[in-house]
Amino acid sequence: MAKSHMDPMSDGGVMKLLRAGRAGAEHVCVLLGDGRLLDLSEAVADVDPAFFAGGGIERIRGLLGAHGFPTVSRTGLRIGAPMARPGKIVCVGPNYPAQAETGQPAPAEPVVFLKAPDTVVGPDDEVLVPRNSVKTDWGIELGVVIGRTARYLDTVEEALACVAAYAISHDVSEREFQLERGGQWGKGTSCETFNPLGPWLVTADEIADPQDLGMRLWVNDVLRQDATTKDMIFGVGELIRHLSHFMTLRPGDLVNTGTPGGVALGQPDPKPYLRPGDVVRLEIDGLGCQRQKLGAAW
Amino acid sequence: MAKSHMDPMSDGGVMKLLRAGRAGAEHVCVLLGDGRLLDLSEAVADVDPAFFAGGGIERIRGLLGAHGFPTVSRTGLRIGAPMARPGKIVCVGPNYPAQAETGQPAPAEPVVFLKAPDTVVGPDDEVLVPRNSVKTDWGIELGVVIGRTARYLDTVEEALACVAAYAISHDVSEREFQLERGGQWGKGTSCETFNPLGPWLVTADEIADPQDLGMRLWVNDVLRQDATTKDMIFGVGELIRHLSHFMTLRPGDLVNTGTPGGVALGQPDPKPYLRPGDVVRLEIDGLGCQRQKLGAAW
Repeated sequence: MAKSHMDPMSDGGVMKLLRAGRAGAEHVCVLLGDGRLLDLSEAVADVDPAFFAGGGIERIRGLLGAHGFPTVSRTGLRIGAPMARPGKIVCVGPNYPAQAETGQPAPAEPVVFLKAPDTVVGPDDEVLVPRNSVKTDWGIELGVVIGRTARYLDTVEEALACVAAYAISHDVSEREFQLERGGQWGKGTSCETFNPLGPWLVTADEIADPQDLGMRLWVNDVLRQDATTKDMIFGVGELIRHLSHFMTLRPGDLVNTGTPGGVALGQPDPKPYLRPGDVVRLEIDGLGCQRQKLGAAW
Repeated sequence: MAKSHMDPMSDGGVMKLLRAGRAGAEHVCVLLGDGRLLDLSEAVADVDPAFFAGGGIERIRGLLGAHGFPTVSRTGLRIGAPMARPGKIVCVGPNYPAQAETGQPAPAEPVVFLKAPDTVVGPDDEVLVPRNSVKTDWGIELGVVIGRTARYLDTVEEALACVAAYAISHDVSEREFQLERGGQWGKGTSCETFNPLGPWLVTADEIADPQDLGMRLWVNDVLRQDATTKDMIFGVGELIRHLSHFMTLRPGDLVNTGTPGGVALGQPDPKPYLRPGDVVRLEIDGLGCQRQKLGAAW
């Protein structure tokens, strides 16, 4: 470990905030331009709802200018989710035209459901196919982390001002549990490990246009989803504005903004649902990449 | 404030655990037989997921025998929810035969959805009718607090062993948002203040039979729900067992077990949905009572 005054914004000026280390004991870090991590853990306890509510991101920016923190190599280090458990996870149903392939009609307004916050795992952690599952499905999504309370907002501009950061969110679901077991989607979306997040957060002010991000997902090196956030039916600002009339969004909440076409559910039979041993890779422009190996719930 | 060695179990031997004080700064207390509160805050920081995971209830039992804690009068004191924000709230759809009055068919298995954990408020706090709401509805439910991780359980007995405590849970919903705005129930169940909880927790071992509890709800002194947990389609143990195959339940999670007939949705037109100024009272045998005045979201 070496003390460093290296510019943490050297990679195109963008701060990449992440948490590295053993699950449950991650250190808050910033990714440096040379691929090493600046370990802020002596000054920042965690990235959690209290962090966002207390202006944590601004505080980190201040720290980066003033201090020399130790750097650590990324090699062999587990990357955790870039935030500890969200206060809640709000999910949006079909939000890309190609989702029509699944037989779901284009919605007149966002379809909304909640997912258990404890489904969040690191971007490269194992995803477990539940016992008795034959329809575990992938779904890349732009994840939106809330930084300011959003409540009864009038405009898209006000809504975007409540966004703290963006990250890749893998909204895994089990289609039989979701669609054939009672009608509500709760059973198929909250299975353990069903929300890999990260690898890092990029703050909202550093994303020039959240509606211009390419996103791709591969299963066993076959490209399955290849889309752009341009195609969202309801953009990020409109989603947050709309949601704020039905619930209060708070700092540290996560909003999953819907997945584009290309999920297993929309493929011809036999649909290529995920099985133990499969490898899923995901990337979104500027937000890094994820890689998960599927396991089986023991 | 007086030091007391009064027996905290004097009320029929049942420990009633609650949190009293200003919202966000509640003290953990036990209700004494004479109506005063034993203030445990010098020894117990809060009743939250970490409390349940760390054997908090057993620790409190030990403390009660060993210490003299100060007592405080309940008069004029706000009672908060008996636990801080749950890790997640899992709700069960129609689970009483009389729910058939709402036109929902009796389910072949539990219908499951999630509700935002930050909807929890104290048992006597104001409940806010959302802006643009014309169908805010009541619903008394037996709330189940999880004390041990429940994951792929085989038997009802194993499931019941994961229950830490019971409390009254008022599962408020907005029926237009829930049923007419996209099909998923997320929009009508997670509005702010929509889950009054308490006044106290009674530990599972002190409830002789969770399937033999009378429950009643009044709106403006008109009795609207009058039922017993005997009538549940899926009992507490079966619900927890079933849920554990679709998600992991963890210490500090809350399960709302469904509401019996008598909700506004099931009444003849014009349905008596809640309006600002209405007063709702709820009680479940052994679990105390709640009283909320409805306000309007400002």
